[in-house]
Amino acid sequence: MNTIGRLFRVTTFGESHGKALGCIVDGCPPGIRLSEKDVQDELDKRRPGQSKLTTSRSESDTVEILSGIFEGMSTGTPIAMVVRNHDADPSKYDIIRDTPRPGHADLTYRMKYKHVDHRGGGRASARETLGRVAAGAVAKKALERISIKTFAYTKSIGRIASEKTASHDMASLRRIIDSNPVKAIDEGIASRMEDEIIKAKKENDSVGGVVESVTFGLMPGVGEPVFGKLSSELAGALAGIPAFRGLEFGLGFDAARVLGSESNDDFLFRDKSIVTGTNNCGGMLGGISNGMPLVVRVAFKPTASIQKPQRTIDMKAKKEAKICIEGRHDPCVVPRAVAVVEAMINIVLMDMVLVAGLYGGDSPKE
Amino acid sequence: MNTIGRLFRVTTFGESHGKALGCIVDGCPPGIRLSEKDVQDELDKRRPGQSKLTTSRSESDTVEILSGIFEGMSTGTPIAMVVRNHDADPSKYDIIRDTPRPGHADLTYRMKYKHVDHRGGGRASARETLGRVAAGAVAKKALERISIKTFAYTKSIGRIASEKTASHDMASLRRIIDSNPVKAIDEGIASRMEDEIIKAKKENDSVGGVVESVTFGLMPGVGEPVFGKLSSELAGALAGIPAFRGLEFGLGFDAARVLGSESNDDFLFRDKSIVTGTNNCGGMLGGISNGMPLVVRVAFKPTASIQKPQRTIDMKAKKEAKICIEGRHDPCVVPRAVAVVEAMINIVLMDMVLVAGLYGGDSPKE
Amino acid sequence: MNTIGRLFRVTTFGESHGKALGCIVDGCPPGIRLSEKDVQDELDKRRPGQSKLTTSRSESDTVEILSGIFEGMSTGTPIAMVVRNHDADPSKYDIIRDTPRPGHADLTYRMKYKHVDHRGGGRASARETLGRVAAGAVAKKALERISIKTFAYTKSIGRIASEKTASHDMASLRRIIDSNPVKAIDEGIASRMEDEIIKAKKENDSVGGVVESVTFGLMPGVGEPVFGKLSSELAGALAGIPAFRGLEFGLGFDAARVLGSESNDDFLFRDKSIVTGTNNCGGMLGGISNGMPLVVRVAFKPTASIQKPQRTIDMKAKKEAKICIEGRHDPCVVPRAVAVVEAMINIVLMDMVLVAGLYGGDSPKE
Amino acid sequence: MNTIGRLFRVTTFGESHGKALGCIVDGCPPGIRLSEKDVQDELDKRRPGQSKLTTSRSESDTVEILSGIFEGMSTGTPIAMVVRNHDADPSKYDIIRDTPRPGHADLTYRMKYKHVDHRGGGRASARETLGRVAAGAVAKKALERISIKTFAYTKSIGRIASEKTASHDMASLRRIIDSNPVKAIDEGIASRMEDEIIKAKKENDSVGGVVESVTFGLMPGVGEPVFGKLSSELAGALAGIPAFRGLEFGLGFDAARVLGSESNDDFLFRDKSIVTGTNNCGGMLGGISNGMPLVVRVAFKPTASIQKPQRTIDMKAKKEAKICIEGRHDPCVVPRAVAVVEAMINIVLMDMVLVAGLYGGDSPKE
Repeated sequence: MNTIGRLFRVTTFGESHGKALGCIVDGCPPGIRLSEKDVQDELDKRRPGQSKLTTSRSESDTVEILSGIFEGMSTGTPIAMVVRNHDADPSKYDIIRDTPRPGHADLTYRMKYKHVDHRGGGRASARETLGRVAAGAVAKKALERISIKTFAYTKSIGRIASEKTASHDMASLRRIIDSNPVKAIDEGIASRMEDEIIKAKKENDSVGGVVESVTFGLMPGVGEPVFGKLSSELAGALAGIPAFRGLEFGLGFDAARVLGSESNDDFLFRDKSIVTGTNNCGGMLGGISNGMPLVVRVAFKPTASIQKPQRTIDMKAKKEAKICIEGRHDPCVVPRAVAVVEAMINIVLMDMVLVAGLYGGDSPKE
Repeated sequence: MNTIGRLFRVTTFGESHGKALGCIVDGCPPGIRLSEKDVQDELDKRRPGQSKLTTSRSESDTVEILSGIFEGMSTGTPIAMVVRNHDADPSKYDIIRDTPRPGHADLTYRMKYKHVDHRGGGRASARETLGRVAAGAVAKKALERISIKTFAYTKSIGRIASEKTASHDMASLRRIIDSNPVKAIDEGIASRMEDEIIKAKKENDSVGGVVESVTFGLMPGVGEPVFGKLSSELAGALAGIPAFRGLEFGLGFDAARVLGSESNDDFLFRDKSIVTGTNNCGGMLGGISNGMPLVVRVAFKPTASIQKPQRTIDMKAKKEAKICIEGRHDPCVVPRAVAVVEAMINIVLMDMVLVAGLYGGDSPKE
Repeated sequence: MNTIGRLFRVTTFGESHGKALGCIVDGCPPGIRLSEKDVQDELDKRRPGQSKLTTSRSESDTVEILSGIFEGMSTGTPIAMVVRNHDADPSKYDIIRDTPRPGHADLTYRMKYKHVDHRGGGRASARETLGRVAAGAVAKKALERISIKTFAYTKSIGRIASEKTASHDMASLRRIIDSNPVKAIDEGIASRMEDEIIKAKKENDSVGGVVESVTFGLMPGVGEPVFGKLSSELAGALAGIPAFRGLEFGLGFDAARVLGSESNDDFLFRDKSIVTGTNNCGGMLGGISNGMPLVVRVAFKPTASIQKPQRTIDMKAKKEAKICIEGRHDPCVVPRAVAVVEAMINIVLMDMVLVAGLYGGDSPKE
Repeated sequence: MNTIGRLFRVTTFGESHGKALGCIVDGCPPGIRLSEKDVQDELDKRRPGQSKLTTSRSESDTVEILSGIFEGMSTGTPIAMVVRNHDADPSKYDIIRDTPRPGHADLTYRMKYKHVDHRGGGRASARETLGRVAAGAVAKKALERISIKTFAYTKSIGRIASEKTASHDMASLRRIIDSNPVKAIDEGIASRMEDEIIKAKKENDSVGGVVESVTFGLMPGVGEPVFGKLSSELAGALAGIPAFRGLEFGLGFDAARVLGSESNDDFLFRDKSIVTGTNNCGGMLGGISNGMPLVVRVAFKPTASIQKPQRTIDMKAKKEAKICIEGRHDPCVVPRAVAVVEAMINIVLMDMVLVAGLYGGDSPKE
């Protein structure tokens, strides 16, 4: 299943060391201005080789739009986008053909499909997310037209965590996020996060972290009970990101530790609009948006590829083995996962706004 | 969207104080032995009025199977199941018609649908999960035939947490879980959990908690990359349970705080089968099952209905108001949510095993 | 797969001689007035035992709405409807348990499912369409609110065909259709059609026919290219009706025999609206509605159950056999299929109007 | 909606005069041998410029496979295929920008999307079927492995019809079909069909026709009741082919004119297999395959583009107008539609065999 969405549908394709990767975006409303540069800007955020925190694989990741755009605007027909691979060096991967890397999908793909493109993890490579980010760029442009904006950023790296959550008051959130290599909004702590990654790298190890995302401008009424809740659709989309380990909305796991009187958000009127005093529910009640900012956090495990020796098995020889992964890898997936989290949230929101019949229409109001 | 699943599809219907609730299970393989008693046993696990921890609403929750079973066995046609409401007392709910309860979906349903059955939360009531549990009973029976067994239990209530995780070695897991009102596997700590709930109740408050679930016997190869990963399908299904706040697989959020060398699971041979030394990945690699136990935890917020006065709004008078919820409510959703978590996991697994083409067939082996 | 539709989804359940049949309608917009009488009126159109043209099985086919309606109006939540079976006489069907009836699905169900409810054809009985007609009643009410009206009627029985096609000018179309037992709009020919059926019945035989349907008021822009065309969705839904043999839109098979200059419909302005001079395309261009009446015809084979002796096989004894079907059967499915064709078209249109984002909104205009 | 299928999913993209067209095939089982030549062979069958019967647009239609194939075999991951446009001459289409061509989707696309790539019909061009044929080539290869073979051919052109239906006994069906420009199996009548097309062309007109398709080797049990019948899935897929006007299975519309005793197919044993004496049902009973050849006919209208003057409207000037279509067009779509019908049937069969759980497994047998 390489397609997600009901009315705004994204299908991705491609392997890490194949000819190309990309996606088809089906269901984009007509009349959205979209250029290759719009997509390229998003791809550049997850492009490798931009700082010492990322792999040295050098790919320009240049996108080409093949269809669906006419005279600079979407036509409502499928938008196909392709990025060709250049700096493929598959020879390095011969060793993993029969020796699955711990923490990777090498083993389960082999068990499931038997015939597998093992080079760089093939389809299971995080490089596949490139198609998702390209699709997310389309969703982002379409959502901008109705003033829905999502900001994802690094919340923690290893044991270094920021207390800050994005809010309306913060000027130039986007600029701050893009100004530091870890993609944090907390400039005071960003360099410590960076150090945490470099430290892991020096030890031939890797480190995990948490991405937080806040969406402003989402109208109430988005989300379908009971199996198409906004929370369900987001959870499904986010849990499919490589290295995903967990997610939480609003107060999240902390809500399991408090009392109802601490967890419930009071309802208030502010400028004749209904708001909640706190936002512990993260912008959703009963899985339907309530007009408050949507808040979600996603936990990522450390990069599975580490240069330390690990125990594995030789599937051909049917005996145990050792592996020490050379290749080129990020010591932490989090800074680049920020763009993927944002893309997936944009994709889901665009789809759910369409399903709710609220795109281009008014938000439901009392 | 009241349907979930691709090949094993569940559609639920019904409101808290309407005529009836229930579901249609479509896609159950033929030849599965199933009686009303099988379903009733599961429903009884989430039935109210069984201990002082739950609401005093008295419902027998008697299920009737209307179709799909012939001479005691499934025929492959839709299995429709109905439970009629009896102890409905909707008069108590007149007050909330225009005064949404904090933490509930009253407000968002009103914003989305305008015309709402407000009685007891209507469709958004946790009573709706009755249809999911009935459907889960069918999935459970079908999975038992291929020896896949899921055990959900209470991991924590408020600040009282158990360290135990279900394992193969534990005898009579099912008996232990059902022997204590909080549905914990840790008998030493179950009574402290119970106290935590009673304490909250006495204070007219409520408390949250975490449910953990472990699945044994799942063959490798279940889960479809990249948008139909087992992790995605589980996350989507679990995030739709009322009061959901977060979920994590295997090491979960802790994985975000450790190093790759601590997080990766080594591969080993044990009795010629491939296993992992640890199970930090929770039984999935790349979103595909690897043959190890599937481990997931779900965080639930405290029950939204509390008897303490709370601030809200009067939507008709368009002014702020106070509300103090009487009605009949559980002071903690967790003990009854255990059955719902288990049901949703069984539903997803049954669907994904069918999608993988592994039901009744052999598991993929090297 | 017992569910149809993307946003307006219908799931049916039930067997001919089981406890009950019915459906769940999911995705009906809120605020639609709907009573059990509205549904009953439609069910009565396909109810058996109303004239000498139909089976003598006596069923009141009384519908009960279990959910989704509150204070007489839809709430946007699933509408579950149930009809209980009463006049079941399954003993008559023992003979077909191992001896499949020619022209019926007895054999293929047995091949596919092995364990089959054979009584009266079980799930494959035309009695299953009762759930579709109930769902169609909901779609009809919802479509009426936006002035989309569909009229299905008998076009031909055996070799007796009517030349008339429903048009806007015809007063009281509905009254005419319901005034004759064959459900024709051509009162001059209706009695000859009736004779054709009676003649077949007297010969212990059965006869086929064609149903035509015309929809007025459908706005332009309904239908999604390229795999969700209105033509595709209609064709898929209609081809699933029992005894279906073929369908055609507009000029239909005759279009295959003419020239382009005879087949193309000119575009004209009439009262500032764009219309076509002729309507050979049947209201769709490129699978998208163009604002003209939607015209479709569906061919049905003769009832498979005939009282003449036929050759079949004994699956247990594994030898050839003879069968002479007693039971109670219509000598022609067409008069009762009229209600089913109309229901399926209403279901598809309601779904496609929602998918196009045109329900409650304006039609796209230049 | 540019995706079709549940487990074998095809998504197409591209416009007639855009950069490229193509598709993604998702859900192809791993281990299928597939080369670009396999796909090219199928594309060549619908390629323009091969005989005087087709448009003079000269396109090599060279396919490039971008993903999903590794070392000559499918891996189970998405197979993306691209064909670049070369001989685009969009200037000729300026005239139709505001003047929709009768019989084309120009008008309805304009009504639905407002911003439309009008060049050559854009997305609504029959050139879009190129992506379907490429996908069909993959399905064909996968079906060949389990010996399911579909042969589509021209049954009639205008008033020239063949009586022959493909049967097992006919040697080299494929060779015969490809040996004549109209793609008929009836060599005696093929040249008369050709004349019929040339005659229409000389008169600046076009002509319609019927394609018939027969599938051999389909196991019993394929098709899901009640909304996923094989008949429904085929009808939906075929009704989406450009210029579609109608379809019929087995005896088709003729079944509406006969008696039950003439229409029912007796069951017999032949070599211990269950067969039917006749095949009026076209290989399906209750929408489920019965093991007999699958027989379907599809009616196509004449090409909408004709060089005769036609009445239309000027949407900008809001007045009536005349149009005389120059461009390059086939005088009959049928010979090239043969490849599209065959592709769509292969796509549907591959999907339905997977859904039935019968791919690579045994067919259900008594």
